[in-house]
Amino acid sequence: MEKYEESRLFRIRHSTAHVMAEAMLERFPDAKIAIGPPIEDGFYYDFDLPRAINEEDLAWVENRMREIIRGKHPFVMREVTADEALEAFSDQPYKVELIKDLVSGRVDENGNQIAKPAERMTFYTQNTFTDLCRGPHVADTGEIDPEAVSITFKAPAGAYWRGDENRPQLTRIYGTAFESADQLADYLNRLEEAKRRDHRVLGEKLGLFTISQLVGKGLPLWKPRGATLRYTLESWLRELLIANGYEPVVTPHIGSIELYKTSGHYPHYKDSQYAPIEVDDEEFLLKPMNCPHHVMIYKSEMRSYRDLPLRLSEFGTVYRYEKSGELHGLTRVRGFTQDDAHLFVRQDQLLAEFEDVVRFFQHVVDVLGITDIRARVGTRDPESDKYVGDQEHWDSATESIVTACRELGLEHTVEPGEAAFYGPKLDFVIRDVLKREWQIGTVQVDYNLPERFELEYVAEDGTRKRPVMIHRALFGSMERFVGVIIEHFGGAFPVWLAPVQVMLIPIADRHVEYLQDVARRLRALGVRVEIDASNNRMNSKIVHAREQMIPFMLIAGDRDIEAGAVSVRLRTDEQLGAMPVDEFIEHITRLIQTRSLALK
Amino acid sequence: MEKYEESRLFRIRHSTAHVMAEAMLERFPDAKIAIGPPIEDGFYYDFDLPRAINEEDLAWVENRMREIIRGKHPFVMREVTADEALEAFSDQPYKVELIKDLVSGRVDENGNQIAKPAERMTFYTQNTFTDLCRGPHVADTGEIDPEAVSITFKAPAGAYWRGDENRPQLTRIYGTAFESADQLADYLNRLEEAKRRDHRVLGEKLGLFTISQLVGKGLPLWKPRGATLRYTLESWLRELLIANGYEPVVTPHIGSIELYKTSGHYPHYKDSQYAPIEVDDEEFLLKPMNCPHHVMIYKSEMRSYRDLPLRLSEFGTVYRYEKSGELHGLTRVRGFTQDDAHLFVRQDQLLAEFEDVVRFFQHVVDVLGITDIRARVGTRDPESDKYVGDQEHWDSATESIVTACRELGLEHTVEPGEAAFYGPKLDFVIRDVLKREWQIGTVQVDYNLPERFELEYVAEDGTRKRPVMIHRALFGSMERFVGVIIEHFGGAFPVWLAPVQVMLIPIADRHVEYLQDVARRLRALGVRVEIDASNNRMNSKIVHAREQMIPFMLIAGDRDIEAGAVSVRLRTDEQLGAMPVDEFIEHITRLIQTRSLALK
Repeated sequence: MEKYEESRLFRIRHSTAHVMAEAMLERFPDAKIAIGPPIEDGFYYDFDLPRAINEEDLAWVENRMREIIRGKHPFVMREVTADEALEAFSDQPYKVELIKDLVSGRVDENGNQIAKPAERMTFYTQNTFTDLCRGPHVADTGEIDPEAVSITFKAPAGAYWRGDENRPQLTRIYGTAFESADQLADYLNRLEEAKRRDHRVLGEKLGLFTISQLVGKGLPLWKPRGATLRYTLESWLRELLIANGYEPVVTPHIGSIELYKTSGHYPHYKDSQYAPIEVDDEEFLLKPMNCPHHVMIYKSEMRSYRDLPLRLSEFGTVYRYEKSGELHGLTRVRGFTQDDAHLFVRQDQLLAEFEDVVRFFQHVVDVLGITDIRARVGTRDPESDKYVGDQEHWDSATESIVTACRELGLEHTVEPGEAAFYGPKLDFVIRDVLKREWQIGTVQVDYNLPERFELEYVAEDGTRKRPVMIHRALFGSMERFVGVIIEHFGGAFPVWLAPVQVMLIPIADRHVEYLQDVARRLRALGVRVEIDASNNRMNSKIVHAREQMIPFMLIAGDRDIEAGAVSVRLRTDEQLGAMPVDEFIEHITRLIQTRSLALK
Repeated sequence: MEKYEESRLFRIRHSTAHVMAEAMLERFPDAKIAIGPPIEDGFYYDFDLPRAINEEDLAWVENRMREIIRGKHPFVMREVTADEALEAFSDQPYKVELIKDLVSGRVDENGNQIAKPAERMTFYTQNTFTDLCRGPHVADTGEIDPEAVSITFKAPAGAYWRGDENRPQLTRIYGTAFESADQLADYLNRLEEAKRRDHRVLGEKLGLFTISQLVGKGLPLWKPRGATLRYTLESWLRELLIANGYEPVVTPHIGSIELYKTSGHYPHYKDSQYAPIEVDDEEFLLKPMNCPHHVMIYKSEMRSYRDLPLRLSEFGTVYRYEKSGELHGLTRVRGFTQDDAHLFVRQDQLLAEFEDVVRFFQHVVDVLGITDIRARVGTRDPESDKYVGDQEHWDSATESIVTACRELGLEHTVEPGEAAFYGPKLDFVIRDVLKREWQIGTVQVDYNLPERFELEYVAEDGTRKRPVMIHRALFGSMERFVGVIIEHFGGAFPVWLAPVQVMLIPIADRHVEYLQDVARRLRALGVRVEIDASNNRMNSKIVHAREQMIPFMLIAGDRDIEAGAVSVRLRTDEQLGAMPVDEFIEHITRLIQTRSLALK
């Protein structure tokens, strides 16, 4: 696959950023320009403006950009000395600072760390605008489709110069460019759709979760409907785990710091952990990962080759420090529950175990209707010697991973150097309905922890051997995964996952009793039902149930009662008409039992 | 019910302690005597001995005690001044210290804090022995049955003088006395039985849990079989919770210290909490209780009188500091999971809610075959003004609790002054098969948190009103409750709870395949099955399965296979003979579905 940084699209966006800067300087001749790199999905440029920007400015700039683009101006590269560069940008203090940093070897023109001082640098010029820039760019603005360009600004979007809150705050204008107007329209539609599906918005609207500043940032509270959804997923996974030969364990959320020193997680991953808690004269850590706890369960008994593979699974909640600015709904949190498992296996069992994990993953996403999946296989960097475990084992483990993917038809890319230092790995990646990629679960071979904890089993010949560990999660984090599927389904969950599966709507008060009986029958079968016995009018009850994305509305009036029926309406507004209660019960229980994605 | 401290048994034990001291001083004339109070189930006396005590000494002392008792010596009380007391005990330094402390008003003769200095004190004398003592005692040793007396010493039993590890370590001899030899025998049998049922021993033997020093004291790791047992209980409770109108929530294991300042849990319960964890410039606590988190979920929406009662339930893990010396298996731990719920109700709903909780509790313990249950109702101390909430509400809440118990036939005692400061409460107490009492769940009315968090609902008349909270747990702690039922069942769990329900035992290797098919059929129905395909002989496989207390062993040989049957053997060693596989499947699924306590 072509790397984005080497693509034509990347050059188009980079060049469009320069065009935007040119247009901005025409609109704001006193503006000071900072940096303007391409990013995923577009580009931005930071400006120090003499006044706040408004909608009119943006429209003017976007329009002017199109004119410039139509001028088919070439991008001309020129190598300059530092002095020439300083001279050229004498009235642009941010550029001056960048040039000086380049010379002293501190950072490049986009503010990233660089390796060595630069004595010479390059300018790129199009039309009237020149920027300090390493490129690459398109040959001329004729390569940009003026109708495939768009810019946006949303207050209070802004960024501190150099990300330092003691430096000036700049105005960041985002933009994007595509190869065609259709692609841009498609992208803007997906943006709109993503906003509509934002799991934070839906989480609030559907009563799934809430975040309380008083409890803490990044620590979601799962409200009844969200907890029901989460627990339905968890119960389903638990069934599958047992069917796949996993055994459950439960471990505490803290562990002695000595445990993490033995595992090497402390102080190695110290920065992502919470500060130790002192208890008497010991120190404890909020559990950053479950593995050392599971290792201690392995070690609590003498194990034989017959006991392997031993697959210990836990919905284990771990806590990791994230900067408060990086927290985001359910998908970036400080405490999350992994659908975690550790497999203790013999080296000769690796292939079979990998195949089982891949098959397990394929089944799970298939049930959820997520069909666009792939894997990234991280292998050893042949140049590096940072790895533990012997080369021969690594090779056969890597071979097992790739073979498992191939044999099970899982699309995958092999990425040398992307392995952990302790073993090769496979990351599961899904694309949601909006074509956004999410890395969810992972499978990692580990030669390190068995060594550090001196794990053993008695081999068939009576000798002591060391097992291999596999760390494995399918969803990765329950929080993040639920966040992802809220957006994937846009809140319209399949019936089996819907927190409320049926809303019963009486046409008048005298129909409530009849529906209470229907509710009893459904609840006895485990169906999640509510009755809207409020004083609202029927239509507003329907609107409310539809907004809550409840799969089925069962409406009952005199005629329904007479016929022992209910009028069935879907959240899609489709009406299935009057249906005998028995028939509806049979219908919904079949959909739930088969975990169907359909409503009819 | 008569208080133990006022009972005849208490006096008998107290007097027997004096007799033991007399016999000990005969055996060890240089011994220094400390204190010897009656305790639950017996008494002890601490001695500073010139050498280590041995079995022969104990036998001699016990025998000598019986002789003294047969002498029918009266217990004679005499009031003395401090000077007389010091004179009498001039060669007994611990007594001298006690007398001085009594005079200065620091502690009483058993080392307990006292209110005011004592100028006069009392001696009790029987036969040749005199002790500094407040009584009460029996009239003479004739009231003691010499055959109902027993003493024990188990190295390294000992106790620091005054519980201070910088003071001398004393030898503590435990003893007990009953009103009859039969009662003593019964008690000693129960002690033996309790030892056999010790959940720490069974937990190890049955592979239920392990405690790793490297993970941390008081932080059990649930191994697969224990986790299965625990999760089976939890799933069952979850079903019942839904059927009883509770809604699940999930909340994080930490919370901002500001949350606990608002709730008043910090610094009020500071000593039982772990030290705060600093994150950026905030502080977080490992959650000592779930209530404030649930309160924030209540507050996340505007509530109406129609929404109440709102019953939020969570298997919430909390962490509380316990001294390491007080930790004990699963029953005294540092982290435990409450089967917690918080009910937000209107004042007029209290009675109905209490009745539901009591009914729920009765159902749960009934299913587990625990029939010996009672409740302690803690009410307001009429003399004190420490309580929050108005008297009228307290009275009606207390009335509701008592009415609920009475109407549902739950034996209960009312204990004035035992309420929390925030509301009256009811504690559930069970007696296990060994007649030991365990306080498990609790129901507490709370007028305080709704006030502190300013909780509201919109009443029918449109005004804002304050709900009442009920804290409620049935098991109390999953850890502790599982510890209790391990001992209650002695590890022989009912089929539905047994971590492994069926062990399949092939007579020879050629019968394995047949049993694998039986296993598949059972597992498809959710039955927990293992096959013992080891090289061991059949008898040792049976012994092993029986030791693991697996309810059913299914043995298969040629004849069984021919008949499509299995030979069914129970863990009680009873044999049900050959049974068609279909019939066994029907049998065990019925036992599981009905949560039967029986095996046939």
